[in-house]
Amino acid sequence: MSTVALAVDLGGTKIEAALVEASGLVRAVGRTRRPTGPDTDPARLDAAAAAVVSAAVAALGPDDELVGVGIGAAGPIDAVRETIDPVNMPGVHGFALADAVRRVVGRDVPVRLRHDGGCIALAENWIGATAGTRASMSIVVSTGVGGGLVVDGALVGGGTGNAGHIGQVSAPAGFEGFGPTLEHVASGPSSVRWAQAQGWGGERGEDLARDAAAGDPVARAAIERSARAVGIVLADAATLIDLEAVAIGGGFSTVTPDYIDLVQASLRESAALPFSRATRVVPSGLAGDGPLIGAAALVLR
Amino acid sequence: MSTVALAVDLGGTKIEAALVEASGLVRAVGRTRRPTGPDTDPARLDAAAAAVVSAAVAALGPDDELVGVGIGAAGPIDAVRETIDPVNMPGVHGFALADAVRRVVGRDVPVRLRHDGGCIALAENWIGATAGTRASMSIVVSTGVGGGLVVDGALVGGGTGNAGHIGQVSAPAGFEGFGPTLEHVASGPSSVRWAQAQGWGGERGEDLARDAAAGDPVARAAIERSARAVGIVLADAATLIDLEAVAIGGGFSTVTPDYIDLVQASLRESAALPFSRATRVVPSGLAGDGPLIGAAALVLR
Repeated sequence: MSTVALAVDLGGTKIEAALVEASGLVRAVGRTRRPTGPDTDPARLDAAAAAVVSAAVAALGPDDELVGVGIGAAGPIDAVRETIDPVNMPGVHGFALADAVRRVVGRDVPVRLRHDGGCIALAENWIGATAGTRASMSIVVSTGVGGGLVVDGALVGGGTGNAGHIGQVSAPAGFEGFGPTLEHVASGPSSVRWAQAQGWGGERGEDLARDAAAGDPVARAAIERSARAVGIVLADAATLIDLEAVAIGGGFSTVTPDYIDLVQASLRESAALPFSRATRVVPSGLAGDGPLIGAAALVLR
Repeated sequence: MSTVALAVDLGGTKIEAALVEASGLVRAVGRTRRPTGPDTDPARLDAAAAAVVSAAVAALGPDDELVGVGIGAAGPIDAVRETIDPVNMPGVHGFALADAVRRVVGRDVPVRLRHDGGCIALAENWIGATAGTRASMSIVVSTGVGGGLVVDGALVGGGTGNAGHIGQVSAPAGFEGFGPTLEHVASGPSSVRWAQAQGWGGERGEDLARDAAAGDPVARAAIERSARAVGIVLADAATLIDLEAVAIGGGFSTVTPDYIDLVQASLRESAALPFSRATRVVPSGLAGDGPLIGAAALVLR
């Protein structure tokens, strides 16, 4: 028999399901996605979840033993009630995602729900960039900023399963003006908005990357500003939680080849104690499959 | 047989040891303290530790089963090397406190070292104000600001045993000017300095308490400023770690009867997400014995 988990990843633009092996390998066969979006409603989300989950179940082979279902969802969630409250999909607040998945799976296996940032952090600690650490965060810098927290090999849930929401931590002193949180300062779209306010003429993160590489000082400054803000907030997280390492992924983290180094320098400069100045900042080891691998890890580890 | 732990608490002014029962009761018999201080050195600390630990060992009765030794020490520490690096006692950085205690105990029992803020948080979660919560912090607002973090009943150590150092997190935006960290804004001495800079004539936290109670607006503003800063930083901690409750103790937390309420209001106003706005702020349930009870809990729980 071959041990597999069924993993579900619900994001702002799509819901996806796949079978994941005990090694962390995401199987291509049965991997399915359906669109979601900011105006999705419970009926459409229910139908999309049923479609992707039933496709994954149908791909189970005769030698596969399904040990459980892990679900990562855009946060916040309520892990106690097993419902979701995604910031970017207001129409499905309170939706009972775990039950919707459970009904389609139709087997008596554990179903665990966490937010996607937590799943990514668990995946990085399992087979990615923070493996072997006693305490780590993994964060994503993309259209939003999110993350998760792993201590002694276990995902930290917190009271309602939401530990790791670093994008909604306050913007550092001196970085206010575009909104109250780190995400308002450091995400790709926030960095674009800041550069535009300084007179830059581009429109997207990709434009910032291209212009910074070509020597445009405003584009470069926008990227450095994002990395500096992320480093300052991570320095405080490192002091508060005594983190050994932080892995950074997401599209905007590759906007320049030295983004990770810029965050590391900012963290080291800002952290108040020797143990937090020693926190390592490293690139994600998992590319785009982190959320599915981490959702599987909720039941495989 | 009666299960007991030997608990040691090393602070900036004293080292203390006592026997603690499985209920959390700190026995008076054998409880001993010796002075430390900012200029203590390894030889004097070693002698003081030996004196208090041997007195506690000598108080073990014939029916007592000593199951281990828990040590809480002023932070930071290095839980991996079992050494201490206390900010306020530079002469004993790198001191091997666990080994010093182990030699005097002279029995083959587990010895565990954590920082005092972590011990207090574990004690509050065991028999104090945060019992029954899935994720909590306990903090102390006194001459310094410190704390610890408990998730699913276990003390979060982090990479080197230092999780919880909230006093060294950055001061919130708008509260800079007296130093870079929360402790520089919100501790008793920091609040006194701020009030003095506004023309107030008192000298100590007790004076602030008296004058605020008598209606002095500057004294009251100094206290509100401390509570507001603590609440803002706790709001971010609650968003990052999804805390159900935060217990607050320490001398300055009783400077006014409504200090806890002021912190709660500030947290609720500043927290970015529903789950973090719901974090409860409560007074410590353990008064002054938290560090010893928590040190014992390191081996009793």
